Amino acid sequence: MQECVKVALDAMGGDNAPSEIIRGAIDAVHMRQDIQVILVGQQDVIQKELSQYAYDEKQILIRQASEIIETAEQPVMAIRRKKDSSIVVGMNMVRQGEADAFVSAGSSGAVLVGGQVIVGRIKGIERPPLAPLIPTEKGVSLLIDCGANVDARASHLVQFAQMGSIYMEHVVGIRNPRVAIVNIGAEEEKGNALVKETFPLLKECSGINFVGSIEARDIPQGAADVIVCEAFVGNVILKLYEGLSSTLIGVIKKGLTSTLKSKIGAALALPALKNTIKSFDASEYGGAPLLGLNGLVVKIHGSSKAKEVKNAVIQCVTFKEQNINEKIKSNIITTEK
Amino acid sequence: MQECVKVALDAMGGDNAPSEIIRGAIDAVHMRQDIQVILVGQQDVIQKELSQYAYDEKQILIRQASEIIETAEQPVMAIRRKKDSSIVVGMNMVRQGEADAFVSAGSSGAVLVGGQVIVGRIKGIERPPLAPLIPTEKGVSLLIDCGANVDARASHLVQFAQMGSIYMEHVVGIRNPRVAIVNIGAEEEKGNALVKETFPLLKECSGINFVGSIEARDIPQGAADVIVCEAFVGNVILKLYEGLSSTLIGVIKKGLTSTLKSKIGAALALPALKNTIKSFDASEYGGAPLLGLNGLVVKIHGSSKAKEVKNAVIQCVTFKEQNINEKIKSNIITTEK
Repeated sequence: MQECVKVALDAMGGDNAPSEIIRGAIDAVHMRQDIQVILVGQQDVIQKELSQYAYDEKQILIRQASEIIETAEQPVMAIRRKKDSSIVVGMNMVRQGEADAFVSAGSSGAVLVGGQVIVGRIKGIERPPLAPLIPTEKGVSLLIDCGANVDARASHLVQFAQMGSIYMEHVVGIRNPRVAIVNIGAEEEKGNALVKETFPLLKECSGINFVGSIEARDIPQGAADVIVCEAFVGNVILKLYEGLSSTLIGVIKKGLTSTLKSKIGAALALPALKNTIKSFDASEYGGAPLLGLNGLVVKIHGSSKAKEVKNAVIQCVTFKEQNINEKIKSNIITTEK
Repeated sequence: MQECVKVALDAMGGDNAPSEIIRGAIDAVHMRQDIQVILVGQQDVIQKELSQYAYDEKQILIRQASEIIETAEQPVMAIRRKKDSSIVVGMNMVRQGEADAFVSAGSSGAVLVGGQVIVGRIKGIERPPLAPLIPTEKGVSLLIDCGANVDARASHLVQFAQMGSIYMEHVVGIRNPRVAIVNIGAEEEKGNALVKETFPLLKECSGINFVGSIEARDIPQGAADVIVCEAFVGNVILKLYEGLSSTLIGVIKKGLTSTLKSKIGAALALPALKNTIKSFDASEYGGAPLLGLNGLVVKIHGSSKAKEVKNAVIQCVTFKEQNINEKIKSNIITTEK
């Protein structure tokens, strides 16, 4: 057996755990021989689910973890107290080099806190950003940061720009990715205090292709590949993307069935429409990496199904093959004192 | 002739000036007898446009203003230097009581600066927010602030909540409007420093129906009537609303014509679909008032057509009839020292 990428997978996290998580793991190992998935969670529950499938036993292992961190729990306390939770056990595997990556659909807060506290930051990285891919007219863009780092400083945003560029270039395969900062106007003098301070730093920053400000209205058109922003703003963008897409699709479906003529039309048009709409569903793009850690941590949507789980697991292979963390270590400007 | 509401209208501002602006004025006075529109701008240009229409000459007047502030101009400088611009002349009419309101599709920056500098704030109002209506599944919500007040303080946001409530209740007609603050989670302890500081102040604030935090994903569902946020975040929400709606509609149209079957379906369904989509177009809701000024200033979208101009002019009547500024004066908590 060739050298494997070892992915610890939180079997207990998310709305569809454990069944969809485990099905995703099975799909991933069926797809690639060079992945080993270690399912982290309650052994008996996992074993029962696994018994439905045929798979290569060298590719799927189980690591017992008796506790589960619930979404409603306060993240810092949960990470501290639930030492035998699937999140803490999985993160510790990454820390100790037993796994290359940890993937979880569980509590976002706990994943963010655990990443920093257990897996730990790469030396020189001030804050690890959460960076989901969002759909655009032209493909996908990386929205960085959507994590817990609210009230970020300018130096953080510069590192986000650098890490985001490395990720988009080497994992997603966009050459010389365009980096832009979210702003309320195109001109350099526009913005709040943070953006005004960050803008000149990004202009001077070597090794990134900084194209200036991006207004939120241009994000869905794919006007930049790496969209840099502070986490509060990033969270608003990500959540509004999800909310507005799903509301609009609902409104459109209602509109399509509002007259008899349109009902007939809708019956004919819906299959094609569904495919298009799916390509614009942010949750389709699965895994958001928490960048800048000593290992890879990937947060997937709480509502993830097998497909997203599989995609996130496979994404870990590219991340390792491309030595992303080595690239981050050797390319990031550090201003930490 | 009964007592009129006098609306100064910037005839030179916006992408479709002067023709659509003037057509909007004509439509407004045809609709209501109790409006007088004073078109502000270059007399000869306005006169030429007006000559196409029949109207009651007591209802449409012209006020000469030779200059035009361009969108690209730096707002503070433009307001200071172009004393004979349509924006400065129109604002001065409100200041001097010659007009009840000023409506402009011109430079947002100049309208915001002019509102503060020329028309002036109501005593006790710390910052005048720009408050557009955005479409939701259930109707409309007021997004307050989308203006130039970036890096706001908690006391500003409390006043936005109060002014927004008054506006939604008395101009839009929503009883006991639900006020929420934009946040990155539903719990009180979530948020950035500004939100954490503002949340308890809103909870204690009498005279508003504060329902807590709202995540961006719940805005399109109409989960609150008054959506309070700092201007940078508000601008991102508004612009993403516009951008995502128009991109999604483009993507959907493409999807509808991707197969022969769907093309036939689309031909039948499109008329109904267009109506639905239109109801979700943020620019349809026209005028965004700049609240808390000694008079009313309404900013309309740069791309406004006659319909939006007409709606914004008519909105000024309700604003005056309901004595919104008197209500603001007597209801706002001031913390100004």
